[in-house]
Amino acid sequence: MIGPDIVRLVFPDPPACSFASDNTAGAHPAVIEALAAANDGPAVAYGDDPWTTRASDAIRAVFETDAEVLFAWGGTGANIVGLQAMLAPRDAIVCASSAHINVDECGAPERFLGAKLIDLDTPDGKLHPGLIEAEQVRIDGARGVVHHVQPRVLALTQATETGQVYSLAELDALIEAARVRDMLVHVDGARLANAISHLGCDPARVVQGVDVLSFGGTKNGLVHGEAIVLLRPDLVEAARFAQKQAAQLPSKMRYIAAQFSALLQDGRWLELAGHANAMAARLAAGVDGIHGVDLRHRPQANAVFAVLEPDVIDTLTRWTPFYVWDPAINEVRWMTSWQTTEADVDRFLEGVAIAAGAV
Amino acid sequence: MIGPDIVRLVFPDPPACSFASDNTAGAHPAVIEALAAANDGPAVAYGDDPWTTRASDAIRAVFETDAEVLFAWGGTGANIVGLQAMLAPRDAIVCASSAHINVDECGAPERFLGAKLIDLDTPDGKLHPGLIEAEQVRIDGARGVVHHVQPRVLALTQATETGQVYSLAELDALIEAARVRDMLVHVDGARLANAISHLGCDPARVVQGVDVLSFGGTKNGLVHGEAIVLLRPDLVEAARFAQKQAAQLPSKMRYIAAQFSALLQDGRWLELAGHANAMAARLAAGVDGIHGVDLRHRPQANAVFAVLEPDVIDTLTRWTPFYVWDPAINEVRWMTSWQTTEADVDRFLEGVAIAAGAV
Amino acid sequence: MIGPDIVRLVFPDPPACSFASDNTAGAHPAVIEALAAANDGPAVAYGDDPWTTRASDAIRAVFETDAEVLFAWGGTGANIVGLQAMLAPRDAIVCASSAHINVDECGAPERFLGAKLIDLDTPDGKLHPGLIEAEQVRIDGARGVVHHVQPRVLALTQATETGQVYSLAELDALIEAARVRDMLVHVDGARLANAISHLGCDPARVVQGVDVLSFGGTKNGLVHGEAIVLLRPDLVEAARFAQKQAAQLPSKMRYIAAQFSALLQDGRWLELAGHANAMAARLAAGVDGIHGVDLRHRPQANAVFAVLEPDVIDTLTRWTPFYVWDPAINEVRWMTSWQTTEADVDRFLEGVAIAAGAV
Amino acid sequence: MIGPDIVRLVFPDPPACSFASDNTAGAHPAVIEALAAANDGPAVAYGDDPWTTRASDAIRAVFETDAEVLFAWGGTGANIVGLQAMLAPRDAIVCASSAHINVDECGAPERFLGAKLIDLDTPDGKLHPGLIEAEQVRIDGARGVVHHVQPRVLALTQATETGQVYSLAELDALIEAARVRDMLVHVDGARLANAISHLGCDPARVVQGVDVLSFGGTKNGLVHGEAIVLLRPDLVEAARFAQKQAAQLPSKMRYIAAQFSALLQDGRWLELAGHANAMAARLAAGVDGIHGVDLRHRPQANAVFAVLEPDVIDTLTRWTPFYVWDPAINEVRWMTSWQTTEADVDRFLEGVAIAAGAV
Repeated sequence: MIGPDIVRLVFPDPPACSFASDNTAGAHPAVIEALAAANDGPAVAYGDDPWTTRASDAIRAVFETDAEVLFAWGGTGANIVGLQAMLAPRDAIVCASSAHINVDECGAPERFLGAKLIDLDTPDGKLHPGLIEAEQVRIDGARGVVHHVQPRVLALTQATETGQVYSLAELDALIEAARVRDMLVHVDGARLANAISHLGCDPARVVQGVDVLSFGGTKNGLVHGEAIVLLRPDLVEAARFAQKQAAQLPSKMRYIAAQFSALLQDGRWLELAGHANAMAARLAAGVDGIHGVDLRHRPQANAVFAVLEPDVIDTLTRWTPFYVWDPAINEVRWMTSWQTTEADVDRFLEGVAIAAGAV
Repeated sequence: MIGPDIVRLVFPDPPACSFASDNTAGAHPAVIEALAAANDGPAVAYGDDPWTTRASDAIRAVFETDAEVLFAWGGTGANIVGLQAMLAPRDAIVCASSAHINVDECGAPERFLGAKLIDLDTPDGKLHPGLIEAEQVRIDGARGVVHHVQPRVLALTQATETGQVYSLAELDALIEAARVRDMLVHVDGARLANAISHLGCDPARVVQGVDVLSFGGTKNGLVHGEAIVLLRPDLVEAARFAQKQAAQLPSKMRYIAAQFSALLQDGRWLELAGHANAMAARLAAGVDGIHGVDLRHRPQANAVFAVLEPDVIDTLTRWTPFYVWDPAINEVRWMTSWQTTEADVDRFLEGVAIAAGAV
Repeated sequence: MIGPDIVRLVFPDPPACSFASDNTAGAHPAVIEALAAANDGPAVAYGDDPWTTRASDAIRAVFETDAEVLFAWGGTGANIVGLQAMLAPRDAIVCASSAHINVDECGAPERFLGAKLIDLDTPDGKLHPGLIEAEQVRIDGARGVVHHVQPRVLALTQATETGQVYSLAELDALIEAARVRDMLVHVDGARLANAISHLGCDPARVVQGVDVLSFGGTKNGLVHGEAIVLLRPDLVEAARFAQKQAAQLPSKMRYIAAQFSALLQDGRWLELAGHANAMAARLAAGVDGIHGVDLRHRPQANAVFAVLEPDVIDTLTRWTPFYVWDPAINEVRWMTSWQTTEADVDRFLEGVAIAAGAV
Repeated sequence: MIGPDIVRLVFPDPPACSFASDNTAGAHPAVIEALAAANDGPAVAYGDDPWTTRASDAIRAVFETDAEVLFAWGGTGANIVGLQAMLAPRDAIVCASSAHINVDECGAPERFLGAKLIDLDTPDGKLHPGLIEAEQVRIDGARGVVHHVQPRVLALTQATETGQVYSLAELDALIEAARVRDMLVHVDGARLANAISHLGCDPARVVQGVDVLSFGGTKNGLVHGEAIVLLRPDLVEAARFAQKQAAQLPSKMRYIAAQFSALLQDGRWLELAGHANAMAARLAAGVDGIHGVDLRHRPQANAVFAVLEPDVIDTLTRWTPFYVWDPAINEVRWMTSWQTTEADVDRFLEGVAIAAGAV
């Protein structure tokens, strides 16, 4: 490992856009413009305004649905609101152990919903029907037995926290596994745009069979804003109250809505997500040839996972921040975003090469 | 009552800024500019950025404190986070029955905190020590008895939901009543700026003896944003986790922080609140002379409460929206904001006069 | 006030059965015998046993219903289980401010249900339709508005905590007031036997229009045991899970069930409650003539409320324990039970007379 | 598989005491006698009575501690009360995936505590320090990071749900693993007597380093009753309120306490548990020689786990009930209790032999 002084001498300036998180990116200029344009005098509060109607319509058009759309501030909040609408007090959520709701929301689901998460270990962060079948005792065997929580929601993350994307066939199989168990399907789509961009399919196709979608905006160029897309009409009333009760009902709703309209305009959302994906692919391709860096898998969305020597990790994080995903195996996560540039990637690769060579 | 067609004939255009809520106002242009300026490339997420540091410092300077400051999206969320940090599972909150936490948050405190609110009826929306003393059984008598919740937090609203402002002497007396009962003091300051403007005192004075403050920005010219000011260091850790768990931790924090900095710059926050108060005073003065409109009390902040004939209410709400506060006594609430103009007030007065005369 | 030494000299031995609570009474000998008789080798756990079937049938026979019956350990638990089955997360409970669920359960409803209790002040502990109508804003005005909790359950206590009994006409009027608001009716019947005994009516009559009943056993001669009577079939599944989740599902259910069978046999439950009521009436008649003791109202169940000089209260509680109900007005509560004897009452009256005379 | 008619012809009468659960056993006669003897006129409610004092003292004597003891009705309730006292809202519980709190309490911990359970897969139902260390990311990595719940309690079950017993060395190592992480230790001791009987050690030894113990009575010969042993004085106040709030505060406490005194008298609790263990050993020894029955492991407490052909399972459960523990591998669970006789075991073995031979 090389010391901090040497880092300063040996390394170039770090990349402008760090690879720590797609939350470090700013907002797209068109989003800021739309937000500013929405500041056009007074407007009715809590969503009964034309901006909110337009943004809801835009989301409905994208997913070819007449679903009700609610706008929330953040991803944890959006997840909680949608899940609350789907659950009775005795119900449980089945999810991957790496799911954001299971790991990264400080137990908000348990605290607010009072519900158990049945988290299934998955080698690659993806659920598949076989994993659900293997939980025969906890899922099928619990049905109707008062001693056990009742698995009611299958919660998927698309793209996953591990940067993978469910194929349409995988999605269909999971949704069928839920349906035969009388379970509903929730999709945490904080990075749904990245997944759709990877799949290259019609957006409507990825919500087929889904009951509630958290449709992410923040990580894809908004200041902040997530949409809760309620694809089952019978969940709307519960969700509307849950939104207020979970403190996710923006009083000046138009400013969230206007951002979404700008994001969805002329396919910008897929363009931005596609760029982030391309930057991850460029990064993966670049590190693939660097000795001492083992790619975990070919990136499908905007995350690259790699295994490095501990000393290399230490050196690199002195230069620019990122997360050690699993310290037990020295696995790191590098995220790209709509704002990451080719120059950022190339600069980062430069640093990786120096660090790897310097061990 | 006159019908909708006649309304169109007889009434002028309604005021641009409705009197339904101070949430109908937009954001101050300087706030939008600051938000846009914060969109300056990438930044560390979750508040570890210079905008957040600057805004926290500005709030600390205003209140002359070294308190920890957290930024949240909304008022309900800010209240919940602060209260969670103050409460053990057995603890209760004593508040006015008209308090926002008791009436207007869809039971978010009970759902998230699992805590009882002991709400005290108050003629004018204000608590006073006598009301607390009168609850000897529920408050003092409950102490240490496992059958009863333990009153732990006295929750005040400044200015109150009924547009009143606690005088400094009233505040001191209430805080003393809390202290002698070993209770903490929470202030819901969604409209604290309006209260300080009315009191004309040093901002630091209104948080003297207070443990946690929800310091409102949304109603005073922000897009959205509230600050949780933790005046007791021993509450900081619990509050930080509660913020995440309550889904009130903005990932791109800088955009909230930058707005607050703009609001606090050069006393803008007090200027805007003072203007809203002045508009309420103008409205109250104007209606005072209209036959058939009884002012409930001289406004102290940015709300006017009045009693009208039901027919007059019906006619007026066909023209421009506002809330019937208490239908049992035909009481209405008219709110002003930083964006309300003298022309809006005068136009509204014109309509009130027509409606009152048309009965 | 006379000192402790003088108390010993001047007062006779205190009554064997104190007037502090009907929980100080033991279990009826027939109940103990039935519990012991149920200890007849092994039996299937969790209620799938003949004792539970028989006791459920006995309760159904008494109330002339085919309702599902669940047995729980305690009154707070029974209330929580029944209420959970009736409530969505956004729903609220309307109750008297003196209700056990509001005052004496340490906030268990808020903690477990996450629900708000809208408690109405009542001069005599009884609700009536006028009180509900007076809450137009909080009850009718909240309907469908996401900012407010949705009043969904009207919770009555029969007999009330203040020893009053709703007449059948009063009950009918309250149930009608609930029905027109699409609210369900819960009855906390911890002392329902005392109420029925007072009313002298058919037990089935008091549950007419009721959706869920907590039918008390503990205060009427059981070791412990309460029944949750689910008069709406659509609440059964939710209640069965809530029972387990609220930790109110006795594994060896037969021992609770057998007690209930013994209690209901040959009208014993009404006989015991009638005796308790008679002892309260005897006590009330006795104190009525003692100078310095003001009866609050003629007792209808097994509680006597009276106002005494503070010194008299202090002296008496040195002799035998009881509760000061409202210290602000020096009101005390004296409870009788199935175990209180005429000698206990007469001895207590003796003490009251001495204390009142000694001031 | 043989049909129901043949079962009746071929099989003897089923054993009097089923092997489905140790909850099917009745109460020990001495326990019933003690309960009946406690029915000695009135007594102060909620535990301020001599029976409760005596039983608390007896438990303290057994564990050689001055811990506070609370009595609850059931095991789920006891667990919840103890855990509530140990947890802040942000805290999580680390437990084995097979733990009763994780699997068999219908999510009561999540509902009541609002806390996440971090459940670790264990091959044999036992935790060991290596499993905790392997969760570096979720346990050590979460410390102080607001995005993650804070692992605060290590919850052990002694004996485990899988009939295993932690050795003293294993316990010490786990407690040390908790201590170095600043975690508290909770023991679910619903079958602690069986564990101590197996270990043959001083009871005080098994609570060394433990912070809260749920000390089971129901499965070891009580009607119902569990004790919450608070080995840290600083948890007492929180636990006392949690007991009430969780609806686990028996009003007529003496009847629970008297049962415990009878159970602990003259070592009866260890005698009864030892008998149950011996019956499991006899059963295991008996099935060991039956072709087609594979013992999973040598029983250490009162449970036998075995793998059988599905047809054999079907046939046997038509004769006498028991649980299929893991249908994926055809594993069954057979429980013995204090009431199981040698004749019951031998009769059951007879049936197993017939069923296994009849395939």
